[in-house]
Amino acid sequence: MTTQTTQTTHTAPAGGPTPAREALDRVLERVEDRLRGHLDRERDQWATAVTGHTSAVIPVDAIADLVHAGGKRLRPNFCASGFLCAGGDPDDPVIVDAAAALELLHVFALIHDDVLDDSPLRRGKPTVHERYAAEHRAMGWRGEPRRFGEGVAILAGDLAYVLADTLTADFPAPAREIWGELRAEMIIGQFLDIRSAAAATADMRLARWIAVCKSGHYTIHRPLTLGAGLAGRPDLAPAFEGYGVALGEAFQLRDDLIDAFGVSATSGKPVGLDVDQHKMTPLLTVAVERDARVRALVDEGGDEGWDTARLRELLAETGVRAEIEAHIDGLVERACAALADAPIEEPWRRILTDMAHRVAHRES
Amino acid sequence: MTTQTTQTTHTAPAGGPTPAREALDRVLERVEDRLRGHLDRERDQWATAVTGHTSAVIPVDAIADLVHAGGKRLRPNFCASGFLCAGGDPDDPVIVDAAAALELLHVFALIHDDVLDDSPLRRGKPTVHERYAAEHRAMGWRGEPRRFGEGVAILAGDLAYVLADTLTADFPAPAREIWGELRAEMIIGQFLDIRSAAAATADMRLARWIAVCKSGHYTIHRPLTLGAGLAGRPDLAPAFEGYGVALGEAFQLRDDLIDAFGVSATSGKPVGLDVDQHKMTPLLTVAVERDARVRALVDEGGDEGWDTARLRELLAETGVRAEIEAHIDGLVERACAALADAPIEEPWRRILTDMAHRVAHRES
Repeated sequence: MTTQTTQTTHTAPAGGPTPAREALDRVLERVEDRLRGHLDRERDQWATAVTGHTSAVIPVDAIADLVHAGGKRLRPNFCASGFLCAGGDPDDPVIVDAAAALELLHVFALIHDDVLDDSPLRRGKPTVHERYAAEHRAMGWRGEPRRFGEGVAILAGDLAYVLADTLTADFPAPAREIWGELRAEMIIGQFLDIRSAAAATADMRLARWIAVCKSGHYTIHRPLTLGAGLAGRPDLAPAFEGYGVALGEAFQLRDDLIDAFGVSATSGKPVGLDVDQHKMTPLLTVAVERDARVRALVDEGGDEGWDTARLRELLAETGVRAEIEAHIDGLVERACAALADAPIEEPWRRILTDMAHRVAHRES
Repeated sequence: MTTQTTQTTHTAPAGGPTPAREALDRVLERVEDRLRGHLDRERDQWATAVTGHTSAVIPVDAIADLVHAGGKRLRPNFCASGFLCAGGDPDDPVIVDAAAALELLHVFALIHDDVLDDSPLRRGKPTVHERYAAEHRAMGWRGEPRRFGEGVAILAGDLAYVLADTLTADFPAPAREIWGELRAEMIIGQFLDIRSAAAATADMRLARWIAVCKSGHYTIHRPLTLGAGLAGRPDLAPAFEGYGVALGEAFQLRDDLIDAFGVSATSGKPVGLDVDQHKMTPLLTVAVERDARVRALVDEGGDEGWDTARLRELLAETGVRAEIEAHIDGLVERACAALADAPIEEPWRRILTDMAHRVAHRES
C-alpha cells in the first residue's frame, strides 16, 4: 500500500462514494435502527411489568442514553466491513444483529469501565454511576450515594450485556466461539489493566499485551473476523489478525496521547485520567524506560497521582511524544501491509486502509 | 398432595433412593465435573497467555473459589429435575451444560450482588471485593483499595457471565429465549431491590414483584422450564410457573427470616444485612403495614440503619414472625398443588414436593 493509494482514499472519488462504501453505510444505518428498536422493545416490556412502578425502565434508559449519545461505532464498522468484504449479503439480518451486539457489548464495557476508573464523563455526558449517585444525593435517600450510583451502573452494564447477547441468537457455532473469545479477552485485558495500574508495573511486554487484547483483538481483529466468519470466510482471519493487532496498538497509543495531551471538549470524556489513575499505558511504559526523570515522577506520585503538567513537559522534552507518533505511523503501515495479499477486492482494501488512518490519527 | 404423601418423601423409602432420585443425583454429579473442567480449562488458557505474568488467572480463580465453596445448587437442581421429569435423556450433555451455566450465572449475580450490598461474607468466605481490597491494602498499592477490590469483583462477575454463556452454545432457540428472559428479569429485580431500599419504598406489591422476579422466576420457574424445554416439553411451563411463583415467594420470606433471625455460621453469609441496608423485604413490608412501632423504627433509622435487635423483638411481639411462618406453609401447599394435575410421573412429583419443603424450611 503506497502513500499515494492511501491519500486517494481520504477524499471521495469524483463520482461520489463507491458501491462498497454505500453498502457499508446502508448496513450501518440499519444497525442504528436495530439498536433503537431493540432498546425500545426492551423498554416497553419493563414499563408495564410492575403495576404502578415505571422505574423498572431506568437501566434500559441508562443504556439507551449512552447508545444514542453517539460514539465512533468502531466495532460495528469493522464487523460490517469484515462481512461485506468477505462477500456477505448486505441484506442478511445477521450482520445487523452482530454489529448492534458489538455496540451494546461495548456500552456494557464502558459503563463498568467508568466505575473502575471513577470517570465522570462519557460521550459528553455524566457517566451512569455519577448520574445515579447524584440522584441519590438530590433525593436524600438512605445509604451511600456512591454505592447506589455504582450499583445502578453495575446492573445497567449487566443488562447491556444481556441485550447484546440476545442479538446473537442466530449465530452459528464458529461465530459464537469468536463472540466468547472476544468477551473473555476484553475482561482479562481490563483486569490486567487495573492491576498493573495499582501495582505500577512498568513492564512494556505486559502493557503491550493489554493493548493488543483490549484494542487489537476486541476492537478490530475479532469484529472483522466475526463479520468474515458470518459471511462464511474464516480464511480471512489471519490477515485480519495482522491488521487488527498492529492497528490496535496504534489505536491504544493514540488513546494515550489523547489522554496525555488532548482536550476534553473534543473527546467527550475527561483527559489526563489514565495518568491520574497511574495507568501504566504503553506510552508511559516507553517514557519510564527512556527517561529517569519520568521514572522518578511516577515513583514519587504515590496516592495523590502524578504531576500531569510536568509529565506532559517531560514527554515532549524527551522526544517520547515524537517517537510515539513515528511508531504509530509504522504500525499503520504494518496493518495495511497485512491486507496486501489478502483475497479481498480493491475497494475494500481501500476502505480498510482509510479506516486504519482514521483510527490512528483521530482526535477523540 | 396430602400431608401424608409429603411426609413419605422426607425419608428415603425402605429400598433406598428411587430411580428418579438416582438419575437426578447422577446428573448433578456430572454438573460438578463440568464446572470443574470448564473452569480448569479457562484457567489453563490464561495461565500461559501473558509470558511472565500468571496474574491473568485471578478472575478465573475468584470464580472457581466461589463455585467450589459449595452453595445449595438450587438452580442446577431445578433445571435437572425439570429436564428429567419431562422425560429428557439423562445422558444428554445439554442438561449438564444448562445446569452448570445456571450455577455460573448465579455466581456472576452473587459477586455483583455482594458489591451492591457491600457484603463481607459469601459461602463462608470473604467476598471477592473484600478479598481484593484487602490484598490492595496489604501490598500498599496505588489508588483506593475499595475501588480496586470492587473493580476485581465487577470483572470476575463479568467473566463468570461469559463462562456461563459459553455453556449455552448448543441451546436451541426456545431455550435461548428462556435463558435471555431469566437474565434480564434477575437484573431488573436486583435494580428495583436496591432502588426501593434506597427510597425506603414500603409497597407490598413492589416487594412481592421483586421476590417473584428474583426467587420465583430466576431460581425456580425458569430453571425448571429451561430443563423441560430442553427435553422438548414446553407444555410443562404453566405448572412450573405456578409452582415457581408460589415457592419463590416462600423462598424469599424464608430468606428474610434467616436474615432477621438467623445465625451467620449456618448461612455462610452475614445476617441482619438486609435490615441494616434498609431493604424493604416482603417481611418488613408486612411488618410496617401491621404495626406503627415498626413503621416508626424504619422511619427513624436514617443513614445509621435500624435498631436490629429492637426490630427482631417487634417482629416476634406483633406476631408478624408467626404470621409469615403460616404464610410460608400456605405458599408451599399452593406450589405443590400447582403440580397436582401436571402430566409428570409420581416419583417426580414427590421429588419436587420434597424440594419445596426443603427450600421453604431451610436454615441457611
